[in-house]
Formats: sequence, structure tokens, C-alpha cells
Amino acid sequence: MRYATFEVETPVGPVRRVGIVTSAGDLLDVNLAFAHTLAGRVDRSRARAIADALVPADLAVLLANGEAAREAVLRAADLTDAPLDALSAGGGRLIYRHEEVRLLAPLPSPPSLRDCAAFEQHVKNSTRGNVPAEWYEMPVYYKGNPRSVVGTGADVVVPRGAERLDYELEFAIVIGRAGRDVPPESAAAHIAGYTVFNDVSERRQQFKEMRGGLGPAKGKDRDGWNVLGPYLVTADAWDPAEPHTMVARVAGEVWSRGSTDSIHHSVAEIVSYLSRAEELRPGDVIGAGTVGWGSGLELGRYPQAGDLVELEIDGLGVLANRWVAA
Amino acid sequence: MRYATFEVETPVGPVRRVGIVTSAGDLLDVNLAFAHTLAGRVDRSRARAIADALVPADLAVLLANGEAAREAVLRAADLTDAPLDALSAGGGRLIYRHEEVRLLAPLPSPPSLRDCAAFEQHVKNSTRGNVPAEWYEMPVYYKGNPRSVVGTGADVVVPRGAERLDYELEFAIVIGRAGRDVPPESAAAHIAGYTVFNDVSERRQQFKEMRGGLGPAKGKDRDGWNVLGPYLVTADAWDPAEPHTMVARVAGEVWSRGSTDSIHHSVAEIVSYLSRAEELRPGDVIGAGTVGWGSGLELGRYPQAGDLVELEIDGLGVLANRWVAA
Repeated sequence: MRYATFEVETPVGPVRRVGIVTSAGDLLDVNLAFAHTLAGRVDRSRARAIADALVPADLAVLLANGEAAREAVLRAADLTDAPLDALSAGGGRLIYRHEEVRLLAPLPSPPSLRDCAAFEQHVKNSTRGNVPAEWYEMPVYYKGNPRSVVGTGADVVVPRGAERLDYELEFAIVIGRAGRDVPPESAAAHIAGYTVFNDVSERRQQFKEMRGGLGPAKGKDRDGWNVLGPYLVTADAWDPAEPHTMVARVAGEVWSRGSTDSIHHSVAEIVSYLSRAEELRPGDVIGAGTVGWGSGLELGRYPQAGDLVELEIDGLGVLANRWVAA
Repeated sequence: MRYATFEVETPVGPVRRVGIVTSAGDLLDVNLAFAHTLAGRVDRSRARAIADALVPADLAVLLANGEAAREAVLRAADLTDAPLDALSAGGGRLIYRHEEVRLLAPLPSPPSLRDCAAFEQHVKNSTRGNVPAEWYEMPVYYKGNPRSVVGTGADVVVPRGAERLDYELEFAIVIGRAGRDVPPESAAAHIAGYTVFNDVSERRQQFKEMRGGLGPAKGKDRDGWNVLGPYLVTADAWDPAEPHTMVARVAGEVWSRGSTDSIHHSVAEIVSYLSRAEELRPGDVIGAGTVGWGSGLELGRYPQAGDLVELEIDGLGVLANRWVAA
């Protein structure tokens, strides 16, 4: 199943919705579709309220609703072949074409954002081969700013004077069930799914602040520099341990190519380590790290203002964002 | 004004409230006190709802209500001399003695948590005098886990085998008004106030992961290791640029002593820098950094399980937490 968060234009302003991709490739509004399935089974004054509680138009809350939401979404999915002009029992469209709406990040404002560096080749390339011994002991990570998240199609601002505004080709884990001190063998039960992550990085600032000792900050976290999407693909449909091709294209040219299965610390180890003595929550996003050769830093060249940067991961989709001058 | 967040035991479980410290040193429930001031001016069915919107029992939301909340709290403060058994018009106690309630962190789950290292002597002490040149260029910082916050009185868990579980003597800035790209000369308008911050740090893990390059993570962010409180003291009542004594006591003995005005990067510079290209939000917490000699690391000794660690800052109060074995 592929979840999307999208915005619909209405006379009262843009309204945020959550959908799943239908068999025809359109978007089914799961909240209204579930409300529709309740017609005749509950008083009609209550259908929308129950749907709002069980299948809200907020993917982090929907994930926190766990099995209750999953069952409701499966029922809503019975409407996947509804015609484009179908309305829910209480009014409201059930299906949208992609071009009618604006895709946001599947989690437009996740509860938290962490980013690991779990691909050895990337760390080798970034440290001239001097990988710290500690890197092998644990999946090192930093915490990003979850408020700086945007989705596919959003412009990425190149600040004045920033000559090395880089992409990073990553997939990200999305937590589905809360957990603390999760053993690796139980990690899968806590993962809702995966999405593509472009960890936009301004290299000059990043390396300057990293010499300050406290890790990356402004070099990674300008508003709009954490790009997630286009979908949240559920874990039953996509497994990063299998070899999925990861590609970055800049202005149509392939710059980076790698595979998810070249990861050193497994996703189970990452989730387990990050949950040690700290609770992970539904909707938490965890970048796995840049795949080897998955950044301009490793290639000695950088996208320029005007370039479209596309990150594509087999089975997860394409994240496309244009670098634009400030 | 001093704000506190506290928990009241009730037959239906603990209920979270926000209060201000009264002239007698007790806690006035500002939500119920404001509702009380509405009696006779609005229909009684609406008094509590209006109070819940304007002066909610959630300090981050109350701060976001800005001037509207400030005016309401000032009106509520007229009840500061109410007797201990006074009830609000709609029912509910107005005043509590401290010993009747449990103080939480003033912001029990702030929207974000950042921590700087703005005191030069601490950085000198922690780097054997090798302060990186970049440290002088900007207030370096890392992002902590805002979900790991606790208040005064909470036990601090010493993990098995952790021989260097340290305190850090800091004050923290609390943002009151949203802002992005705030110039230093406007920073004051964005600061709600200040509180004491104990940035609990497990030194072995911290230095191990810092060699991984991405800054501190698990060495600082175990659940319960970011201690804030006891109050949020508003910026009109406390100015860190004046010399306020900062003291750390371990098991009753003074270990650390410093002054707020020994800071290198001013609070205005910190707020300005952190707001660059990223929006700061009401309730955001920003640690200023450890004062010189304000940690066991700098003294070569560490609190042990059983020790009470008290951080006291003149005008902000005492944050007292016991180190307890896991």
C-alpha cells in the first residue's frame, strides 16, 4: 500500500487529506472512503466523526491508530475502483487524479526526524577512507529539524553564496508502533514503511559547524531542506534488505546509482539502536543514510540553481525538486 | 512572573495544570482563575471554554497565545491573594501549595530542544584549551530530544556500567513569539523567559559517538536526561546579561560556581543565529550551554547513584534531581 498526504484547493482554502494510491494510480481519500463504508451501519451524524477518529487526515495519527486504522483503511480500499466523480455518502470526493492536487511529504511534520549514516561507502568517500572505528560499533546519527520537511515538487532554495548545495540519496524508515529498547529481531513490528529522503546539505556550512564538535545543524536544516516522499510505502510491500536500485538524476543526467542492500547497519539494527532508552513514536522518521556515491560531495560537483534533482528508488517512487536561487 | 506546570491527583487520574507563583509562594491555577474572572461577564456555559482557549493548561500553547494570553493571565493574577480554599465560579481549586502537587518541567514536552555551548571557559576546559576557531564564529549547537524532558524531583537513571553520568549547569531560553531570520536587536521580543537546564550527559558514550562525527546523541538523550525547571521566569523579571550566580551542589557540597554574564555568545546572538532560515516557535527551548567549571567533566569527578544533584541559578530557582541506579 502506498500512502500519500495531499492538499486539495477548496473555497475555504487548501485542505489536507490522506490517500492511498488506487489500482488506476489515482488517490483515494481514505477518510471519506471509510466514512462512506459506514453509511447505513451508523447514524449518518456519526459517520464522519468516527472516520475522523479512526482514519484521520493526518498520517502520523493514522499510524498511531495501529490495527484499528489498518482495518478501516482496508475497508476503505474496497472503493479503489470507484469512478472519478463518485461522492461519499455524506458528500465529498473519493478519488483524485494526481494532477488535481498538490502532494506534500507523506508526513508533512513528523514527530521527529533522525538521520543515520549507515552506508560504509558513503562514509569512506566522505572521510577519504578514514572511517572512524566507532562508526562500525553503532549506527551514528544526528537529529534533524522535523519542521523543515517538504515534499516532492517543492523548490529547494539555494542561499546566496552557497556553491555546494548538495543532495543526498537516501531512503527513510517510518515508525508505525511505539517502542523503547526494541531488540533487532522485533524491529520489523515497529516499522510502518519507507519513503525517499533527500537530505539537502550545504557543504561549506556543514563542515564548518562539524569542526565545532556538535555535529551538523544549519548545514542541513534550513526550512525546506528535508525532502520526503512521494509516498509512504508500507513494509509489507517493500523490503530494503532486497536489492532496490537507487538513482539520482540532476537536470536529467544520472549522477548517482546504488542499491539499498549495500547498507552496513541493517534497518533492524538502526531501529533497535535508536530505541535504546528512548521511545520511538508512530510517525518518527529515520533516514538510513546516503548510499555510496549518492551525493555531489562524493563526485566533486553540485547541482546548480535551475536544476531539477530527482531521487528515484525502485518501488518507492521519484522525489523531484528544483534547486532555485534565493 | 514565574510559570509552573504541575500535576494534580484527582479521582480520574493525574491532571496537568499551569500556574503562576503567588505572592505567598503558592501556585495559582491561571486557567481556572481566568475562568473565574469571566463569571457574570459571559454565559457560565462558556467561561471554561474561553479560558481553555485563551489560557490553556499547556504552557507552549499559552505562550503561542501571545498578548491575548498575557492580558488574561494578568487578570487571573488579581486572585493571587485568594485563600487556599477558594474555588473558581465553576468549581475547582484556585490555589495549591507546592507540597500538594507534583511540579513537572514548565514545558513537559517542548516543541523542540536545542543546546548551545556558548560559554568559552567550558569549551576550553572540555577541549584542553583547543577551542576550534569555528566556535568563535557562531554559537554551535546540537538538537536534543524534546520528548526526553523531565522536571525537578524526577529521578535521573544511571545506566549499569555508566561511571561518568554527569550534570551540566545551564540556563535555557524559552521562545515566546515565532520568528525566522530574527536580527539580534529584535531577539528580546521573541523570548518568553528562562529556566534552569540540567543537560545530563553520559561522557563515555558521548565522546565515543562524537568521534563518529555527527555530534552527541545517546550520550545526552536518554528518556529523562533533559531536566528543565522549576519555573519559567518571564524575561521582564530576569536578564541573563546581568550577573546571576549559578551553582551546582552534589550531595550538599558545592562543586560548580559561575555566573550567567560570563557567556561569550549573547542570548540575542543565539536566538538570531538559530532563527536563520529556520522558524523558531513558541515553547522552543534553547540551552545556552554549560557555564565554565559547570560539569563534573571539568572537575574530574562525577555524581554517584544516590547523590542529589541541585542546580541553582539566582532568580530562576533550584532544579533538584537524584541520581539513581538503573
